[in-house]
Amino acid sequence: MKQIHLAEAAAFLRQHDHYLVLSHRRPDGDTIGSCAALCLGLRALGKRAYVYANPQFTPKFAPYLQGLIGAPQAAPTIISADISTRELLPFGMEQAEVALAIDHHSRNTPFALLTLEEPEKAACGEIIWALLEQMDVPITPAMGEAVYVAVSTDTGCFRHGNTTGNSFLVAAGCANAGADIYAINRTMFCLKRKARLQLEAHLVQTMEFYAGGKVSVSVISPALEQELGLTEDDLDDIAGFGRTIEGVEIAVLLREVEDGAGKVSLRTSPAFDAAVICSRFGGGGHAAAAGGTVPGGIPAAKEAVLRAIGENITL
Amino acid sequence: MKQIHLAEAAAFLRQHDHYLVLSHRRPDGDTIGSCAALCLGLRALGKRAYVYANPQFTPKFAPYLQGLIGAPQAAPTIISADISTRELLPFGMEQAEVALAIDHHSRNTPFALLTLEEPEKAACGEIIWALLEQMDVPITPAMGEAVYVAVSTDTGCFRHGNTTGNSFLVAAGCANAGADIYAINRTMFCLKRKARLQLEAHLVQTMEFYAGGKVSVSVISPALEQELGLTEDDLDDIAGFGRTIEGVEIAVLLREVEDGAGKVSLRTSPAFDAAVICSRFGGGGHAAAAGGTVPGGIPAAKEAVLRAIGENITL
Repeated sequence: MKQIHLAEAAAFLRQHDHYLVLSHRRPDGDTIGSCAALCLGLRALGKRAYVYANPQFTPKFAPYLQGLIGAPQAAPTIISADISTRELLPFGMEQAEVALAIDHHSRNTPFALLTLEEPEKAACGEIIWALLEQMDVPITPAMGEAVYVAVSTDTGCFRHGNTTGNSFLVAAGCANAGADIYAINRTMFCLKRKARLQLEAHLVQTMEFYAGGKVSVSVISPALEQELGLTEDDLDDIAGFGRTIEGVEIAVLLREVEDGAGKVSLRTSPAFDAAVICSRFGGGGHAAAAGGTVPGGIPAAKEAVLRAIGENITL
Repeated sequence: MKQIHLAEAAAFLRQHDHYLVLSHRRPDGDTIGSCAALCLGLRALGKRAYVYANPQFTPKFAPYLQGLIGAPQAAPTIISADISTRELLPFGMEQAEVALAIDHHSRNTPFALLTLEEPEKAACGEIIWALLEQMDVPITPAMGEAVYVAVSTDTGCFRHGNTTGNSFLVAAGCANAGADIYAINRTMFCLKRKARLQLEAHLVQTMEFYAGGKVSVSVISPALEQELGLTEDDLDDIAGFGRTIEGVEIAVLLREVEDGAGKVSLRTSPAFDAAVICSRFGGGGHAAAAGGTVPGGIPAAKEAVLRAIGENITL
């Protein structure tokens, strides 16, 4: 268990010849784009490299993984991208011995032999970009697209508060490398499935407001999920939907999980710490995005989260 | 009437001491941000500089013009930013003798003594940024915010097809100069009024589809406008809403205008020419956005536009 710097990580990657790269559970654009770009970069250096066939991959990101997923023949050197803790290793790889974990989460719990952690980066894709540069990999359009998917999705297309000058610099590099950023933007940010729009319409018409409009509470019931035929892609980042309404500082989303418990997702403005609020009912997360589950279903979860928010703001 | 290059424009700006900067009619983020940044930059060089009090300024961009609007005492050197033709000079300045026009439009019709035209730039703000760098102006957070407003609004927050690597590079510079890009993104791109969201919800739930989902038809009745209390800001670009739905290539929006006629707005993918379609019922416009009015209200307008579309696609 050792923290290493960028140059050391690059040297390590140059030393070995056969890699398997892991994405995290419920994989998002950052972990997938990072895996894809790293795999392409390693191949460009003449190495064998594959992205692990995470059973939770969704069709949305398939174009960026084309030709990269595979099962290595012998024991590969295992790298993880955007995984902050052993519990988030993908299904089927729970016991993996990870040689190098590359991550941007500030609360990484070391689980790999070596860890390259750069919490000031908005996306893991920005670290991968720096690694590719450090290893003198000539950036192809496909690498640029993979990194752009990572950075643009993790920053909400550069709108979230985590966006920095470096996020834009990396995006510039991707665009200049020939990445078709317009096509990615259209797929990832402009187009919506009808079911997603119907979900948003339902939320607008049923949303409850508290504290003079500063708090919004949305509920997605199992019945609604079934009625609209919602997929995980449709639910992507829906927790933040309330925060798009003028005046809302704390957006609450309530769902029911498999065992009947109520699942709370919280998104907050910089004025409120979502992790602190969620810790009051046993949850956790980041300052702007946190959550937790509460036994007793959606009604109990709603009561618990409103009580927790009530300690910061008069409802 | 002479075209000049960046270095010549910078030299020209260094030579004079007293400036008035003009924005275009119906000013947008690019012209306003460009004027503000240039004015701040000229002041940083010890010059007197003001932004002309364009009578069409709206409250949305007021924060970026604070302290900059004024009436110069003597005859100033007049600069225009993002103005492509004399007809777009702001009201009250129709007869202005513009010394230097700075613009990124590819069809600039020269109207100034000198023109700095860089049509490869997505936003005029990118040219202003290059000018500030060329003049060695130390970039302040306020300058960064003004340029960021210009570049982010003209690229649809980096989603439109005009976005280039340079757009991202300039955005990186703005962020690194201390601009509060998160606040700008939230105001310009994330927040929506409740009435707008309710309108979108209504449209999702009432939208009709033709040609296997390639054509969407939305109706905003006068009753709905009144019920939701819609303002012109709420209706901004609503004609394009149908095009955000996966599969929709032609989005039709129908409204009623003052005299009871039906107003058609059409937004199309590159596969269909909106202007050609609208010309079939006496309308017109551009390839991607066109419209027209039809006597007989919304029902007649719907029939006319569907008939016109039917000449291109089986409904």
